[in-house]
Amino acid sequence: MTTTRIARAFHLTARPTGFPTPDLFALTESPLPAPAPGQALVENLYLSVDPYHREEMDEGWELNAPLEGRAVGRVTASRDPGLAEGDLVLHRRGWRTHALVTAGTDGTRLLPSYEGVPLTAHLSILGGTGLTAYVALTRVLELRPGQDLFVSAAAGGVGTAVGRIARLLGAGRIVGSAGSAAKTARLTSELGFDAAFDYHDGPVGELLAKAAPDGIDAAVDNVGGDHLEGTIAAMREFGRIAWVGAIAQYHAAHRPPPAPRNLFDVVGKSLRLEGVLVRNHRDAQGELEDLLVPRLRTGRIAPDVTVVDGFERTVDGFLGMLRGENTGKMLIRTAGR
Amino acid sequence: MTTTRIARAFHLTARPTGFPTPDLFALTESPLPAPAPGQALVENLYLSVDPYHREEMDEGWELNAPLEGRAVGRVTASRDPGLAEGDLVLHRRGWRTHALVTAGTDGTRLLPSYEGVPLTAHLSILGGTGLTAYVALTRVLELRPGQDLFVSAAAGGVGTAVGRIARLLGAGRIVGSAGSAAKTARLTSELGFDAAFDYHDGPVGELLAKAAPDGIDAAVDNVGGDHLEGTIAAMREFGRIAWVGAIAQYHAAHRPPPAPRNLFDVVGKSLRLEGVLVRNHRDAQGELEDLLVPRLRTGRIAPDVTVVDGFERTVDGFLGMLRGENTGKMLIRTAGR
Repeated sequence: MTTTRIARAFHLTARPTGFPTPDLFALTESPLPAPAPGQALVENLYLSVDPYHREEMDEGWELNAPLEGRAVGRVTASRDPGLAEGDLVLHRRGWRTHALVTAGTDGTRLLPSYEGVPLTAHLSILGGTGLTAYVALTRVLELRPGQDLFVSAAAGGVGTAVGRIARLLGAGRIVGSAGSAAKTARLTSELGFDAAFDYHDGPVGELLAKAAPDGIDAAVDNVGGDHLEGTIAAMREFGRIAWVGAIAQYHAAHRPPPAPRNLFDVVGKSLRLEGVLVRNHRDAQGELEDLLVPRLRTGRIAPDVTVVDGFERTVDGFLGMLRGENTGKMLIRTAGR
Repeated sequence: MTTTRIARAFHLTARPTGFPTPDLFALTESPLPAPAPGQALVENLYLSVDPYHREEMDEGWELNAPLEGRAVGRVTASRDPGLAEGDLVLHRRGWRTHALVTAGTDGTRLLPSYEGVPLTAHLSILGGTGLTAYVALTRVLELRPGQDLFVSAAAGGVGTAVGRIARLLGAGRIVGSAGSAAKTARLTSELGFDAAFDYHDGPVGELLAKAAPDGIDAAVDNVGGDHLEGTIAAMREFGRIAWVGAIAQYHAAHRPPPAPRNLFDVVGKSLRLEGVLVRNHRDAQGELEDLLVPRLRTGRIAPDVTVVDGFERTVDGFLGMLRGENTGKMLIRTAGR
């Protein structure tokens, strides 16, 4: 199955200041490694590039070493009794064409054989973005049928998953924000949203008030800052906000997003604002799969992804994701497929 | 039982700009009214003066009319079949010596005959401040035994009730902030707190970090601004903050309190920030009484109150409360007792 004797990997060569540039990354080559006892060699098929990788550039990732990220690959040689040649695995040794893994350690797991489920689903709606969306909706918002929902950065990986899953949970009106007219058009025409606005078109508070004139019961906020402020303003009494991150902050090299000026309305409207980190909710993975796998198999839903083709374009895909060029989850398809 | 033929009442004569002054109030006199059919005449014994009355000065209270506030009084004449002479009632016609009330309307209710329970309890730990504390601890924080708690404005009406009730619920370490060394001394010597600090002694974040070096699991915040920021900083992962108001804001004539600069840590530490308005939780009154009345009867706990003597000093008591001169709930004892 192996198509090459060379393994390629991206390294980070320097820390960024501000928005990252391609020259901070280096594409390295090395001979294909051989698995030691207990290891399997995996040829990666899809790589995930994520907003949190921007943070990893600042302090998580080591310089001049292979980078870490989620990936799906196929076992091409195995000395791990838990993995056989041909097995599909989900693991964390992304940003490279080949990886040595061991089942059950460091996040490596054999993919369930869900016939009919696209591989890309495991890095999108069944992966971290889907689980984030599911946990935000079910555990934090405890969304009830008929409740009206706002989703910021709605065309992104988490946002599209929120839209899909909220619809399955019986949400009422679903409103999303995105960064271009093309994306807002796709939100309403393809992605199941009832209304959408481009946040460049004015103050978020005003745009949201127009898109949801009767207010909202719940929100999943990916952005913070003015989006959070507009969300608080649009909230009905007892509304809940699941705060899953602040994409804007990753771009700003750790300048905190401005706090909403109307934060005190959390008291006046008895609101709940709660932070969600998916790493604390891995136990919900089974529930998520129970909900989605039957629908993915029948094609009732499909993963919303933007796929960049070619391992050598990984950095392009990553930077494009940071610029918001994707609709749905941004993935890299390596040439090895 | 009536000790006078004259009814006295405070009116508001003008709206304040900034911190209110005594000249905005006028003490009026009128002949004692006679109850119409369905009404009872009550002679007030205790009046409640509250932070929210500062807001009422801006827009709730009518000018040149008797003001509204909680009071406990005794029926001196009744044409209401639900009330008999001598009955004790809780009602909303405070800020005056006598009031015409009707049982079951406009918040008027016959006080249960809890022998041994001080009358002041009904305007403090069994009243709105106690119910606020109870709901914040049980419904919002869902405080579990052993959890460490921070209470801002801890020496006030809500704060002292939080301390008492949290102890009954099995809280771990209870830390409070207050505005003077005398108050912090009382918090630890009399009011059941394990540690306390005077927020004038430095940045709240630093003072709290010193008083709770291992962090906190839960907080009831009355203040907002730098107190909320310090609270977020001290929170352990999954911590919860019940936000019950922003006393500072009432003083500042509607300038919102500064939002915490570390708000994004709500995501990073998976925190929950939730607003509490006691008016949405009146159904918890029975639970509160079940918890406290047996302990009030035996004297195991006593209402924490500061009582200003004399109806004519109502405005002094109110302004003193806004300046933080009380420990526990600020009440006025009318001369009529």
